[in-house]
Amino acid sequence: MHTDRIRNTSLLDRVKEVSEVLDLFQDGMVIASSGFTKAGDSKVILPALAANNTSRPIKITLITGASLGHETDAKLTEAGVLARRMPFQVDKVLRKAINRGDVLFVDQNLSETSEMLLDHHLPEIDIAIIEAAYITAEGGIVPTTSVGNSPIFANKAKKVIIEINTAVQTNVHGLHDIYLPEAYPNRKAIEIFRPNDRIGSAVINVEPEKIAAIVLSHQQDSPADIAVIDDKTAAIAHHLIDFFTEEVKNGRLSKSLRPLQAGIGKVANAVLTGLAESDFEGLTMFSEVLQDSAFDLIDAGKLTFASAASITVSAACYQRVFDNLEKYKDKVVLRPQSISNAPEVIRRLGIIGINTAIEFDIYGNVNSSHIAGTQMMNGIGGSGDFARNAHISIFVTQAASKENKISHVLPMVTHVDHNEHNVDVVVTDVGYADLRGLAPRERALKIIGNCVHPDYKEELQSYFDRAVAEIGGQTPHLLDEAFLWHKRFRENGSMKAR
Amino acid sequence: MHTDRIRNTSLLDRVKEVSEVLDLFQDGMVIASSGFTKAGDSKVILPALAANNTSRPIKITLITGASLGHETDAKLTEAGVLARRMPFQVDKVLRKAINRGDVLFVDQNLSETSEMLLDHHLPEIDIAIIEAAYITAEGGIVPTTSVGNSPIFANKAKKVIIEINTAVQTNVHGLHDIYLPEAYPNRKAIEIFRPNDRIGSAVINVEPEKIAAIVLSHQQDSPADIAVIDDKTAAIAHHLIDFFTEEVKNGRLSKSLRPLQAGIGKVANAVLTGLAESDFEGLTMFSEVLQDSAFDLIDAGKLTFASAASITVSAACYQRVFDNLEKYKDKVVLRPQSISNAPEVIRRLGIIGINTAIEFDIYGNVNSSHIAGTQMMNGIGGSGDFARNAHISIFVTQAASKENKISHVLPMVTHVDHNEHNVDVVVTDVGYADLRGLAPRERALKIIGNCVHPDYKEELQSYFDRAVAEIGGQTPHLLDEAFLWHKRFRENGSMKAR
Repeated sequence: MHTDRIRNTSLLDRVKEVSEVLDLFQDGMVIASSGFTKAGDSKVILPALAANNTSRPIKITLITGASLGHETDAKLTEAGVLARRMPFQVDKVLRKAINRGDVLFVDQNLSETSEMLLDHHLPEIDIAIIEAAYITAEGGIVPTTSVGNSPIFANKAKKVIIEINTAVQTNVHGLHDIYLPEAYPNRKAIEIFRPNDRIGSAVINVEPEKIAAIVLSHQQDSPADIAVIDDKTAAIAHHLIDFFTEEVKNGRLSKSLRPLQAGIGKVANAVLTGLAESDFEGLTMFSEVLQDSAFDLIDAGKLTFASAASITVSAACYQRVFDNLEKYKDKVVLRPQSISNAPEVIRRLGIIGINTAIEFDIYGNVNSSHIAGTQMMNGIGGSGDFARNAHISIFVTQAASKENKISHVLPMVTHVDHNEHNVDVVVTDVGYADLRGLAPRERALKIIGNCVHPDYKEELQSYFDRAVAEIGGQTPHLLDEAFLWHKRFRENGSMKAR
Repeated sequence: MHTDRIRNTSLLDRVKEVSEVLDLFQDGMVIASSGFTKAGDSKVILPALAANNTSRPIKITLITGASLGHETDAKLTEAGVLARRMPFQVDKVLRKAINRGDVLFVDQNLSETSEMLLDHHLPEIDIAIIEAAYITAEGGIVPTTSVGNSPIFANKAKKVIIEINTAVQTNVHGLHDIYLPEAYPNRKAIEIFRPNDRIGSAVINVEPEKIAAIVLSHQQDSPADIAVIDDKTAAIAHHLIDFFTEEVKNGRLSKSLRPLQAGIGKVANAVLTGLAESDFEGLTMFSEVLQDSAFDLIDAGKLTFASAASITVSAACYQRVFDNLEKYKDKVVLRPQSISNAPEVIRRLGIIGINTAIEFDIYGNVNSSHIAGTQMMNGIGGSGDFARNAHISIFVTQAASKENKISHVLPMVTHVDHNEHNVDVVVTDVGYADLRGLAPRERALKIIGNCVHPDYKEELQSYFDRAVAEIGGQTPHLLDEAFLWHKRFRENGSMKAR
């Protein structure tokens, strides 16, 4: 039995029940798990650790690629398993625990965790859990719907547990391109010159003696939420496509643009959907996550190739992709996040990075992680890797929300994830501001002129005018008033003056 | 005449007096000039433009590599020549004009200007002024003490004026490695795997028909200020070397460390001087600027190779280096700043980046450019290129200054150039905080515990404790109080509570 999924027969005796492996996990351990934006995560062991935590409570550090699916982070949080979590999460229950200070969250640029593990800048991993479609005759791990940080986990962990998910068909073999940068000082070039260049192997190699157990699961990834395109997201997409159209008209971009990176969420989805209906063609992606819209673009003949660290799609799209995998296999590749987000490749390919802001300010500084400067939402994710090194760095958000009681364009952001040097274009449903080559005072005028919701425009202009008149400087601000809108919201439930 | 300096005889007839070329400069033009941290700048034409501006006033955009010497920026400012300046400056007169809003300053990551010019994201350059030691028989420009952005300027400008500086000896030929990344989509790998790898040519190529004039100058670069090591800078250096020693002890670094990048200024100078007296050896640099200390380290046998975009040294060191240039030529290379600061190379080499902060906050967010959040000092320079992509990103500053009326460790910085994700270690004269792998609340405790001046420690701890208790969150802050210390300083001349 299992010989289709465990083709290396010497490993057949490692197969265990989940209940048999739980004793391997000890209090204080550093545990790593596959999983990137809900794709390819641990389906049985991490949930079992949560379920088991009443009988034998432990606390661990959990490192993943990015977010997990199936409310696993919620279950782990509720069971008190998590002492420390990195480098990303999107779970509501975990988020609350982080903001209470009950779980320590190390929010990292997604390219960096692998680098820090490679050179021992983070604690050693005791156990890595890696979801696989199967194990090859040579003992290689064939990943499932994400690669994430799995290669470095398999390389560095003291022990590895493989979760073979029989719900993933074995012909995913060949979808992945596994490459682990060399430790210093022997690092070579990452020889990706086009999104479809392959530089590594199809499997994750692991020393067989480190494989402590193989467990079986049969469960699909958590489906992505359907990102409904509403008027606002459609307007944002429309403005962004206007920007691209201008770039083509001015000879700075061709109709195939440059390789696109798009953050997760409904705005990115709307932008890509908008591109499907546009004149652009021969598009490519070099991104972190492929959502439904990427496959829609492929099917529309607009997108010729997409590289990412995971496939995170709706249930219907999952069916479509994996029922027709051979059709997509020469159009898609999944890579480790140290490669999908590598500064070298991002700069060399000249990526256009499109990421979502929670809020930005009149100078184009972006907050993409904290509500009111203090409460964590999801984390910085890969946006920092892309914003700093991209050819064109674009941030999108709605101009206002909650019956316009919140303005997402502000005098000063309460938390800076991307500063003005790393933000080329900002887009809201009101319009876009191309900030390239502008000084801060010019950036302010363009942002106030093009991007702010009308309810806030006059006051924002007044803030800027008074800051210029009273304080001046390269970046005029009234520090006593910079967070006034946040204060009003806290006190009155609205950023507007009474 | 001049045949030693203009070896391509077809160019001899381009030699002109400075007064003859001034008419080429028209109001509204975009002018580029060589010059990086005072080295290899225009010695005669830019000053003449300033002097000439009363008789025939013009306003221009001036793009350089980095800062200029000889108070040229001051003269241009006072004469009203500058409408717009990028990407860096350090001049007191210009700074004031920027902060008044009289000159628009576009403060850029130093690797980016070249990228933006290559793909037409900035306005076209009308005239580039490039200082040269001589012109080769083949028409190549041999740069002097910096490379900076000169290759892209020569490549993209409509017209080029060459300033041959006869004060620079001709055997600088061979000191430079000129390489211009290809325009998209044909970008290749930057094949630098060690600081001493050479990938380009010894000269800057320029289409001969674009050379509008050749003028002669005879003047050395402005000498670097002597950076005297005082108790504070020595203490900072001492703590940083302690950190390196710990890294070696823990097996994360070898005695040759990783290639070092050091920002300009007395702290960086003190750190490098400290290394000369340490056990570290076989050091290399991959940096922007080589100051006196780099040559001291070479002479001490500690530094085996140094790569940078410029040599900016004291008058005595200049004499020592250029009197013995053959001795240094296989130990030093000067590169364009798009290469010295290339994300690809920074990540691949695993650079240790050491940059100066104006202030940092309890979470490790760094302000390196603005006083009180509004008034520009010098600009971000290359610190963003390095901090984001370095192997270890270190920021240094004094704990307090001005009779301790200013604390440089604060509840919240008023301007963020480098956020916590890009800051691994902070060092003051009080001590260092290794922040790798820590959550914000842990970062705060370590920074308050290790880096703050004693006069401010209690209040900073109180701020953090109250923020945790009253607001909580991933990054606890009291927004109403976050800038209180700045307000006190503005009102009372001291950040301390009365």
